[in-house]
Amino acid sequence: MRVDEAYSGNVFIKSHPNFEESEAVIYGMPMDWTVSYRPGSRFGPARVREVSIGLEEYSPYLDRDLADIKYYDAGDIPLPFGNPQKSLDTIEEFVEKILAANKFPVGIGGEHLVSWPVMQAVYRKYPDLAIIHMDAHTDLRDEFEGEALSHSTPIKKIANLIGPKNVYSFGIRSGMKEEFEWAKEVGMHISKFEVLEPLKEMLPKLAGRPVYVTIDIDVLDPAHAPGTGTVDAGGITSRELLASIHEIARSEVNVVGCDLVEIAPIYDPSEQTVNTASKLIREMMLGFVKK
Amino acid sequence: MRVDEAYSGNVFIKSHPNFEESEAVIYGMPMDWTVSYRPGSRFGPARVREVSIGLEEYSPYLDRDLADIKYYDAGDIPLPFGNPQKSLDTIEEFVEKILAANKFPVGIGGEHLVSWPVMQAVYRKYPDLAIIHMDAHTDLRDEFEGEALSHSTPIKKIANLIGPKNVYSFGIRSGMKEEFEWAKEVGMHISKFEVLEPLKEMLPKLAGRPVYVTIDIDVLDPAHAPGTGTVDAGGITSRELLASIHEIARSEVNVVGCDLVEIAPIYDPSEQTVNTASKLIREMMLGFVKK
Amino acid sequence: MRVDEAYSGNVFIKSHPNFEESEAVIYGMPMDWTVSYRPGSRFGPARVREVSIGLEEYSPYLDRDLADIKYYDAGDIPLPFGNPQKSLDTIEEFVEKILAANKFPVGIGGEHLVSWPVMQAVYRKYPDLAIIHMDAHTDLRDEFEGEALSHSTPIKKIANLIGPKNVYSFGIRSGMKEEFEWAKEVGMHISKFEVLEPLKEMLPKLAGRPVYVTIDIDVLDPAHAPGTGTVDAGGITSRELLASIHEIARSEVNVVGCDLVEIAPIYDPSEQTVNTASKLIREMMLGFVKK
Amino acid sequence: MRVDEAYSGNVFIKSHPNFEESEAVIYGMPMDWTVSYRPGSRFGPARVREVSIGLEEYSPYLDRDLADIKYYDAGDIPLPFGNPQKSLDTIEEFVEKILAANKFPVGIGGEHLVSWPVMQAVYRKYPDLAIIHMDAHTDLRDEFEGEALSHSTPIKKIANLIGPKNVYSFGIRSGMKEEFEWAKEVGMHISKFEVLEPLKEMLPKLAGRPVYVTIDIDVLDPAHAPGTGTVDAGGITSRELLASIHEIARSEVNVVGCDLVEIAPIYDPSEQTVNTASKLIREMMLGFVKK
Amino acid sequence: MRVDEAYSGNVFIKSHPNFEESEAVIYGMPMDWTVSYRPGSRFGPARVREVSIGLEEYSPYLDRDLADIKYYDAGDIPLPFGNPQKSLDTIEEFVEKILAANKFPVGIGGEHLVSWPVMQAVYRKYPDLAIIHMDAHTDLRDEFEGEALSHSTPIKKIANLIGPKNVYSFGIRSGMKEEFEWAKEVGMHISKFEVLEPLKEMLPKLAGRPVYVTIDIDVLDPAHAPGTGTVDAGGITSRELLASIHEIARSEVNVVGCDLVEIAPIYDPSEQTVNTASKLIREMMLGFVKK
Amino acid sequence: MRVDEAYSGNVFIKSHPNFEESEAVIYGMPMDWTVSYRPGSRFGPARVREVSIGLEEYSPYLDRDLADIKYYDAGDIPLPFGNPQKSLDTIEEFVEKILAANKFPVGIGGEHLVSWPVMQAVYRKYPDLAIIHMDAHTDLRDEFEGEALSHSTPIKKIANLIGPKNVYSFGIRSGMKEEFEWAKEVGMHISKFEVLEPLKEMLPKLAGRPVYVTIDIDVLDPAHAPGTGTVDAGGITSRELLASIHEIARSEVNVVGCDLVEIAPIYDPSEQTVNTASKLIREMMLGFVKK
Repeated sequence: MRVDEAYSGNVFIKSHPNFEESEAVIYGMPMDWTVSYRPGSRFGPARVREVSIGLEEYSPYLDRDLADIKYYDAGDIPLPFGNPQKSLDTIEEFVEKILAANKFPVGIGGEHLVSWPVMQAVYRKYPDLAIIHMDAHTDLRDEFEGEALSHSTPIKKIANLIGPKNVYSFGIRSGMKEEFEWAKEVGMHISKFEVLEPLKEMLPKLAGRPVYVTIDIDVLDPAHAPGTGTVDAGGITSRELLASIHEIARSEVNVVGCDLVEIAPIYDPSEQTVNTASKLIREMMLGFVKK
Repeated sequence: MRVDEAYSGNVFIKSHPNFEESEAVIYGMPMDWTVSYRPGSRFGPARVREVSIGLEEYSPYLDRDLADIKYYDAGDIPLPFGNPQKSLDTIEEFVEKILAANKFPVGIGGEHLVSWPVMQAVYRKYPDLAIIHMDAHTDLRDEFEGEALSHSTPIKKIANLIGPKNVYSFGIRSGMKEEFEWAKEVGMHISKFEVLEPLKEMLPKLAGRPVYVTIDIDVLDPAHAPGTGTVDAGGITSRELLASIHEIARSEVNVVGCDLVEIAPIYDPSEQTVNTASKLIREMMLGFVKK
Repeated sequence: MRVDEAYSGNVFIKSHPNFEESEAVIYGMPMDWTVSYRPGSRFGPARVREVSIGLEEYSPYLDRDLADIKYYDAGDIPLPFGNPQKSLDTIEEFVEKILAANKFPVGIGGEHLVSWPVMQAVYRKYPDLAIIHMDAHTDLRDEFEGEALSHSTPIKKIANLIGPKNVYSFGIRSGMKEEFEWAKEVGMHISKFEVLEPLKEMLPKLAGRPVYVTIDIDVLDPAHAPGTGTVDAGGITSRELLASIHEIARSEVNVVGCDLVEIAPIYDPSEQTVNTASKLIREMMLGFVKK
Repeated sequence: MRVDEAYSGNVFIKSHPNFEESEAVIYGMPMDWTVSYRPGSRFGPARVREVSIGLEEYSPYLDRDLADIKYYDAGDIPLPFGNPQKSLDTIEEFVEKILAANKFPVGIGGEHLVSWPVMQAVYRKYPDLAIIHMDAHTDLRDEFEGEALSHSTPIKKIANLIGPKNVYSFGIRSGMKEEFEWAKEVGMHISKFEVLEPLKEMLPKLAGRPVYVTIDIDVLDPAHAPGTGTVDAGGITSRELLASIHEIARSEVNVVGCDLVEIAPIYDPSEQTVNTASKLIREMMLGFVKK
Repeated sequence: MRVDEAYSGNVFIKSHPNFEESEAVIYGMPMDWTVSYRPGSRFGPARVREVSIGLEEYSPYLDRDLADIKYYDAGDIPLPFGNPQKSLDTIEEFVEKILAANKFPVGIGGEHLVSWPVMQAVYRKYPDLAIIHMDAHTDLRDEFEGEALSHSTPIKKIANLIGPKNVYSFGIRSGMKEEFEWAKEVGMHISKFEVLEPLKEMLPKLAGRPVYVTIDIDVLDPAHAPGTGTVDAGGITSRELLASIHEIARSEVNVVGCDLVEIAPIYDPSEQTVNTASKLIREMMLGFVKK
Repeated sequence: MRVDEAYSGNVFIKSHPNFEESEAVIYGMPMDWTVSYRPGSRFGPARVREVSIGLEEYSPYLDRDLADIKYYDAGDIPLPFGNPQKSLDTIEEFVEKILAANKFPVGIGGEHLVSWPVMQAVYRKYPDLAIIHMDAHTDLRDEFEGEALSHSTPIKKIANLIGPKNVYSFGIRSGMKEEFEWAKEVGMHISKFEVLEPLKEMLPKLAGRPVYVTIDIDVLDPAHAPGTGTVDAGGITSRELLASIHEIARSEVNVVGCDLVEIAPIYDPSEQTVNTASKLIREMMLGFVKK
């Protein structure tokens, strides 16, 4: 009965009501203004929270329960519609506070460009940072039709910032020839088509390093995530993605933050994409957030 | 920036964070277990809240703004799935607390049976109570296929409790012959098909009396509210329903509570039904809740 | 409990199990192979039956109950996919049996071309036949892109057979200039845009005559019937269509058969179109079928 | 031409018209009132039948044809909305008649709780009964939010009745920690995540025993069955499920009944889930029903 | 047979292949990056063209045929995703060329902000310009959450440019109190809720003047146009909107350009909104473009 | 800026504007009038073109770019609705022109029967022709419910024309027993269920021969292609289909034409099927069309 209690509203299931006491912070980045194909990912974070009530709290994969960690749901960051630069600045400032408070950031997007300011903030805190990136797309463009702020560019930006050899992309099945060539030249790792097997090879190399994990949900085949902006056939299954998250969780890598982006609910009337996203968030938190 | 503030989550737009200071209380009654046709109204309240962010706060109909009143969103009442009696008891107990605190109850359903415990609680506080009921259906059955707890029965129950002459139904276009005949015999008011014009006639008779307003969203034509359990062609427009709410708001009637029920979002991929419901809740609060 | 009884399957609600004892016969005509825009009306009849379980059996408009008449549901006529001529022959043969048994035919379509063989059969039995036709489209073409068997032609065919002065079209808001001109020249009645008011004027002229009523559900505005092949804005409401059916029912006209066509469920995920069609069938039977 | 024949209505394709002469009986259990997440499985059985017209009658997997067996479609069991106990009693009484007539029961749900009364009836006839259970969820709760009659409980109930060692669950990927622990303690078999391979190991142990097969369609990944109440990423493919059914069919196990539950059509506008369910029913009948 | 001809692709039905010889030019403005609620109108123009093949070419309302005028379909203006200012500049430059060639511009949106550069260009050519604006929303904000380039601002901008007394808004049912007050103070015309009747009053005052007509499709009730970003109950019917266009067409006003904006197809699986938009474009061209 | 240029409209991305200079020709065959289950594939070609704007032009699978070949998009062949024979004649005449001009034909369907006239024309040019056929269904019927022109017959027709030993079917999981038996008797190759592995075995046997590749998109599992007429569980993944196309591309086979058919967009609101089809067309052109 909640009449005489504070009602915490629609938050991710089992969120802790207090920011200070939490180890991790969930936040939405409801931006989709630079996407080149189908918009709508601004509603991803809200719908992922909403369907999280359908989640079991226990993970039989990791034998861990949401009750084992404390996380605060900070809601969606208010972003100015149609203004990419100001939106990115707002996100960066927001995440800096989370990091300053020594909490683990768990972002939900939103288009992939939102990961750029997050990764910048994380890099300032962890100069030895590496990126694990799962995606259908390279996201290595310098600009899209003249725009440097585009959802096709975040991995190029972070590669330029932290050095391309510190970026590891998996599951890539779409991009311009120039993007693949650039990656090859500069020594950035790209695993085409596959995620789990190449990840198993790469993880030992990253042992002990701080790693930020950024997952574009379109790394999944459209069969498993129809609710995203740019569906691209030939992706991995949700089983492989879950196994990949668990592989990271069980590795020697020090995950220092993560996000899941490009969830666009309107394209999926079955709601399977948001339900899957909600489960992925659960598994990432249970796997990555340490006591 | 909400990192260091309490996040109030997904609540109806502009809700007041404090129960005690509020004049009205919004609450969801997510029950749909006795419906005889299409279930799904359990998700109505949550989705109405969610889309309320798209609402303008000002009503050009009533020249009043949501900032002019204080209302608390108490969230959804947790109800035991598949147990009608216990669900009704829980609702009744919940609403009694709201009434005991002298706040105006604004319920969102959920199937129409949820109005039954609310009206019981309201009646205990206001023994001179009258009911204004807008609906496609009579809801005057004694039972449905043997079940006395059915979404086809709440108006019969309240009519039996407070006396059928105190119940005024409008917009009715579906029911058994026996239901219409019973109403006639016992002197209960039923306006078939129309709402606004007969309402204008009846409101003066109710001047000064405490009135509870219960609206089944299927009083609207399916064109205006496809997202409901039992769609029935030949209903009124959303313009007529808005005008009817405004007619009550401007009358001498003393509205002491209201609800809007049978919102089943899954049947309406366009989301127009939940957006319309959200606007109707705004207009009811602006029209019915006095300072 | 149906284990040891004959199972009556998916039939229109309250259908009589026996053909011989029935006064009316419902049958589906699941053909959509000549449509020029969106196909799918082959599934109309089956879905209309399926949702009829959601219908109240009593009509508060006509104060009559489905229990007051006996009607048999003959199911869908099996039609050869992609063969218009053979399909029409099959329908004609089927309806002749119904008429030979002196039963009232109630057809559900399927594209509008299915009405052509029905009307031929009815005309053979009633040489003084007149047609009341409600539709968004004239359907007065001689052919469509070279095809004489097209869903754009049935009214032209019947007008040529029984004489254009015996055909009364209502609600027409789409057609070629030549179609409107032809109708004018030969003295065929066309009411543009409106149904109810011109119908009230015309009905006295048809008093005592045998009349077949053919309704294309797209006479309704797309808001009221999105589930049809060719949606065309600016149509009438379901209230006006219901009132028009009731106007005919209360007139001196001798209705000898009727159909409702062009119901294409797939375009309407809200299922409002099939539910509306189901109610229209109820009202037509209650209004047109005499003891 | 069905005018002068008995109309067999909406039944599963090629159903036999006579109960007595049939070897198997298909029946729907349209109940969804205790589900904790998305309702709508009450419409599963009707839609599965409806789309069965799209099925080929021959199975190239089993080289057997629907013409090789006789099965009667008894339609949906009429159940009282919102009354779980009475619904379960009605189902149990219904299935007892089927078993008394020595026919093979093939149930379609409906929520998973409907399997509980079926399994009770089957157990009375076959005291040496074992259960093969394929599901995403353990369904081993004692109650859900206080309700002992919940769709989360049927496997616990049957395990308690026939002994947990006689219950074999496969494909489980969701549940409370306590449920997994209980199963382990009492020696109930649970294969997490996988179905086909562990099934191959277990089937020899069950050789010669009477086995009831209960399949929750959510054992499939949401990609393969989006139309269910609780979608949970990481499931098996429809290929694996088909192969698992064939594995049982070819084993020494004596299947004495089966069901397929939790089909909720409204969440899948593509209709793939009901089409898949229809094919699964065909394969189960061709594989399990002996002459 | 088009193998050896130039294929003109997907253009609005009956478009003329030659720009120079045409009297009017259709163009899409696929921008939706500043919208504050549901994006997706970038796909409006393409889908409106696509469904135009379902249109009859003749208007029985205006007794005029698309063959009577020549119009060129210039396709969608390529706009830089996420860059509002550059998008507006591109549109303005594009429309200036159309006006310089003395052709009638017919724009399809896209969000309402796209009308701002069009109206600027038109105003430079017609300094005595007046605006007829049909919309659910005032669009009179100075900025939205800090952004001056927002879909909530175009009418304020044009009112400031050409003088508020030259702007006539109709059908408005949503806005901030300040917007309505500002309009009143500065003498801008706003008809709340209604379109046709106040338009009839205003048109004589505009006789002889150059007028640009801008229609936000959300002036329609959501029942008639669910496929738009911001659905708002209580709007007008498509019949009233068609009649309003015809009223302008038959008036003494000199229409010099027009647009129809905010068509977001994804929210309307029935496709009625794009079909309605396609018909509205036909009626505007037949009514407004003179020989 | 396209105001003063010829606008090439909605064509497959990067199509060449000139037929004569092109090496390949894309054309749509918008016919669905003989389908026995769900119609709607007439809209497949148009929607595949429309979404091709979302494609990356480079294939990381084949390391080839659409810029490397020239192809002309001839649009949809205009076909007479409801007249199968005349439609097939029109297609045959059309494709003969393409072949006469020595261009590679790339067809998009439409129902599978459209491949029959194409294969006839190709066979006249290449008397040593073999067919590679990927499909869920045998398509080896002689007729369907009496109709020899049916979407269930094209492979039988071509087998009879060129000899069954020259036809290789893969992925088949549905058909009548008689169809499988006939294939066995006459020595036609059918790989049940699998595509990639048996294809690897067969391709060496076809080395050097002219081969036409016809793909029914329902060879994919419904999870990967819900937007098709006849969904059938247990199909292959889009990864396997892509790999199969690449296997052919890298083989010694001389592909002389190809098609992709049975794309019915309306059944897939997520649009994944048309996006997948668009990618498959890209891969087939990059793999099969030589300089």
